Parts: sequence; C-alpha cells; structure tokens
Amino acid sequence: MTTGRVFIATSLDGYVARKDHSLDWLMKQPQGPDDTGYEAFVETIDGLVMGRGSYETVKGFGTWPYTKPVVVLSKTLSQSDVPAELQDKVRTVDLSPKAAMDMLHAEGWTKAYVDGGRLVQSFMREGLIEELVITTIPILIGQGISLFGELPQDIDLELVSSKVLNENMVQSHYRVER
Amino acid sequence: MTTGRVFIATSLDGYVARKDHSLDWLMKQPQGPDDTGYEAFVETIDGLVMGRGSYETVKGFGTWPYTKPVVVLSKTLSQSDVPAELQDKVRTVDLSPKAAMDMLHAEGWTKAYVDGGRLVQSFMREGLIEELVITTIPILIGQGISLFGELPQDIDLELVSSKVLNENMVQSHYRVER
Repeated sequence: MTTGRVFIATSLDGYVARKDHSLDWLMKQPQGPDDTGYEAFVETIDGLVMGRGSYETVKGFGTWPYTKPVVVLSKTLSQSDVPAELQDKVRTVDLSPKAAMDMLHAEGWTKAYVDGGRLVQSFMREGLIEELVITTIPILIGQGISLFGELPQDIDLELVSSKVLNENMVQSHYRVER
Repeated sequence: MTTGRVFIATSLDGYVARKDHSLDWLMKQPQGPDDTGYEAFVETIDGLVMGRGSYETVKGFGTWPYTKPVVVLSKTLSQSDVPAELQDKVRTVDLSPKAAMDMLHAEGWTKAYVDGGRLVQSFMREGLIEELVITTIPILIGQGISLFGELPQDIDLELVSSKVLNENMVQSHYRVER
C-alpha cells in the first residue's frame, strides 16, 4: 500500500494558509541556518499528491519547485489545463484519495507526499496518512485553511521527535498509530 | 497592569476539551516522570480567571484543585450559586476581560492564570495575554472547544523554549510580541 506523508508548516492556531491561500505570514518569518529537513524528506518520497488549490498556488510562484512527479486530485482540472512546460511533471486525476493511492500503489509508489490542508484532511479521515512532520510558526492568524478537520473518530499519534528550528519554530514528527 | 498567562494542554488539532467539556482524551494519556512545570507556573501567578464552563468542569472533579484565588467571569453565575465550602476560594464577577483585569490590578494582582478555551480566546483578542505554555498531546479529536479563535489581526509570538515531556508531549512556551 502507498502511504501518505505530510511535511507542512502551520501557524500556532493550526492554519496552513489564509483563506485566499496566501502564505505571507509564513514567508515573512526570519530565515535561519538550521536544516528544516525538507530536502531529506523529499528524498524519501516517490512523488506528491495535492489538491487544485495547492497546485494553483505553487504554479503561481513562477518557478516549479518539484523534481518529483506531482499528481493533482481535482474534479475540475484536466490534463489539457496544465501548461506545456509542466506536462511531464504534473498529472491531473479525478479520483478519490483511496482510489488515487491504489493507482499510485499499482505504479510502484510506496510513499506519497500529501500536501495542502484540504487534501490532508480527507486523507487523514480515510486513514491514508502514516507520518506527519509539522513545523509550527510562532504566529496566530485567526482564520484560514486548517491542517486538520472533523474526523469520524479520534486518531492517536506517536511522537517520534521534536526540535526547535532557528530558535523560533517547533518541528514535531508524528506517526499515526494503527 | 495585570497580564494574563496561559498554561494549557491541547490536542494536536488545537482543542482544549470536547464540546461537552470532557477531557477523557487527555486523562487517558500515559503518565510519566517528567515535571510538567505546572507547580512552578502556579507559584508565579496571583490567582486564576476562568469562565463558567471551566469552573463547572473543575467543580465536578469533587476535590477543588486550586490553592490560589479563583475569579469566575460569568453573566449568569452569581456568588450565591457557589457552594459554601468554596465561598472563600471562588468569586464570581460579571465583567468584561478588560474590566476584570483592571479590577485585579487594583487589588494588586500582577499575573493572572487565564484558563479555558473560550476565555483564552477573548483575552487574546483584547491583548490581555502575555505568555502561553502549551502542551500538545499526540491525538486528533476532530472537534471540540478550540484554544484559539478569530482575531481582529495577526498576533506575532516569540518562542521562549520548547521541550518533549514524557516522550510523547511537546511543551512550548511563547511570549506575545508587543
């Protein structure tokens, strides 16, 4: 089975982006020398799965940041909407989280980086997330897109490790208990 | 000015209690040898300020756990509702957060322990919280009473310290930037 991994930053009040997807609150944080572990994390995954909102936000950056294949789950975006320069990097599929993971499993993926608040919520609800690395930014933004949402039942986690990055962020690594 | 301090446990998804105020998800966590710092924290405060919901929950424990004076902010609870054995420990006041802090300042309080999700939210909104110690429990409960709520604007925080307690909880200490 392909399992989902999350590597994401949230405000202390649990938002991954403002309602309009903006990340200004994150981008304004002072940079520091500490390794966030992002590169090492990306080495461990076969590719990314994201929703349309995250895809559009990342595409808006101008420079495509991912070297691994990206699968966009969307009911409305089709492959012909993807710009020519991204055609070999981005694939759109209209599948449920479970069906998408089954497809990726058949293709040989073992670990998928699941990105974006709404997608993480639906993957969590369906038990498709195995590990989360959450970097907590020292700011309250009051509203936005939450990392977590309603659940059919409690989910117990195991804390793998936690550390302070650049003296202002707390990065905690959790594993979902089965 | 009396400043508010928060010392609270939340689920990883940011809830301090279920909607019915229950804390079963917190109480079921394994106990460990590490000092949570609660006793040392209580030594620093002049007393507690809480809402009716928290007061009723704590009263339900049977044994009153606080040695410091408790002020309950409530529009509906009056002093005659407080049981005889708590009359010298609990005072009810029908005041706004700001007016309550002004009253406590006049009485010589410098640090008030502000407890309970709804009260912390309103004190945060009014800029009455100076420090927060948040212990994150490794569980997602999906819904409940949130520690944080909507805000008129972003609130920047400074991370004072963060540590792992009993191998499963992350306790982070924040100061509100002014």
